[in-house]
Amino acid sequence: MRQASTILSIDTPGRGFTDITRAMAEWVAQAGIEEGLLTLLCRHTSASLLIQENAAREVRVDLAAWLDRLAPEGAHYMHDDEGPDDMPAHLKATLTGVNLQIPVIDGGMALGTWQGIYLAEHRQKPHRREIAVHLIGA
Amino acid sequence: MRQASTILSIDTPGRGFTDITRAMAEWVAQAGIEEGLLTLLCRHTSASLLIQENAAREVRVDLAAWLDRLAPEGAHYMHDDEGPDDMPAHLKATLTGVNLQIPVIDGGMALGTWQGIYLAEHRQKPHRREIAVHLIGA
Amino acid sequence: MRQASTILSIDTPGRGFTDITRAMAEWVAQAGIEEGLLTLLCRHTSASLLIQENAAREVRVDLAAWLDRLAPEGAHYMHDDEGPDDMPAHLKATLTGVNLQIPVIDGGMALGTWQGIYLAEHRQKPHRREIAVHLIGA
Repeated sequence: MRQASTILSIDTPGRGFTDITRAMAEWVAQAGIEEGLLTLLCRHTSASLLIQENAAREVRVDLAAWLDRLAPEGAHYMHDDEGPDDMPAHLKATLTGVNLQIPVIDGGMALGTWQGIYLAEHRQKPHRREIAVHLIGA
Repeated sequence: MRQASTILSIDTPGRGFTDITRAMAEWVAQAGIEEGLLTLLCRHTSASLLIQENAAREVRVDLAAWLDRLAPEGAHYMHDDEGPDDMPAHLKATLTGVNLQIPVIDGGMALGTWQGIYLAEHRQKPHRREIAVHLIGA
Repeated sequence: MRQASTILSIDTPGRGFTDITRAMAEWVAQAGIEEGLLTLLCRHTSASLLIQENAAREVRVDLAAWLDRLAPEGAHYMHDDEGPDDMPAHLKATLTGVNLQIPVIDGGMALGTWQGIYLAEHRQKPHRREIAVHLIGA
């Protein structure tokens, strides 16, 4: 049984979803684990991680619009030190979550055919985001 | 330290919650792990996994109605290729999440007394769903 | 490779967020694991776990108010055996989730600078809550 871990840095272009599926697949492949467990932790409170549809781009457009409706910008937040998009970003990160776990089976991530791994940036401006990555297996 | 993993297939009867607690408990028991970590990944983007109340059926009825209010069907989605229940299903799966992790202690899942594990089907029609399952421990 | 696991009991003062970051850091430190994976499971369906901003208290005030807007108390729930705050508590626990995973790197939890671990109590009254904790690594 072995482990591998790293801190991955990803530059986001501002609000939206960055596909990190290939980056994670390559990292798992070079670790040489046939069976195991991959864990991701987004080290921020206004960005998050999710697994969603990787084919139809419209799903991510609708998802962003829906998050905006559930956590709109506005004057009713106490916390607005960093601007009107700050508190909504914390709420969207809470809803989607900062953790993902993916079993590794037969040397690859056991994702479904239509599943992609996304880093969700909830702030308007570009940010450098860090993801703690851990893999255990054999 | 050992590992076990599998892909579990589950037929859902359409929209609603399928209790998979017993199936998971049996799979953990036959693996013979006394202490470890169980991980589940739902391999779909319009179905999801959650842990909720296993006694009062009304909780699941209220939960389904609440998800309908937060992610209603309607004409305001760009993505509707597969019907009006498709995009709301992606949103509900995002809110509830596709991952669960359950510590195994003293040979069994360390769930609370009132906790059950549910596969949530968010599409109207029955589907065959797959869950990637991973267990590590000793 | 080694494991450690325990059931942690925490008394909440009623609705709100209890910071358990230091308790978890101390537990990880005494386990003497340099690289590994920490998993938490809240063993309840009306309390939950989340990672959020640890500096500005206003973020948690806004978060609580937002959860109240998304899952308000009211007469439209079927499940109200335990009072008007019961079903909203189940919904808030579903949105935030009962699981957290934190990679351990260089002997400590790989949290971001501004991240704290919170036990979220969604019932009005104080409760004793249990968290199943699992650590694997070397």
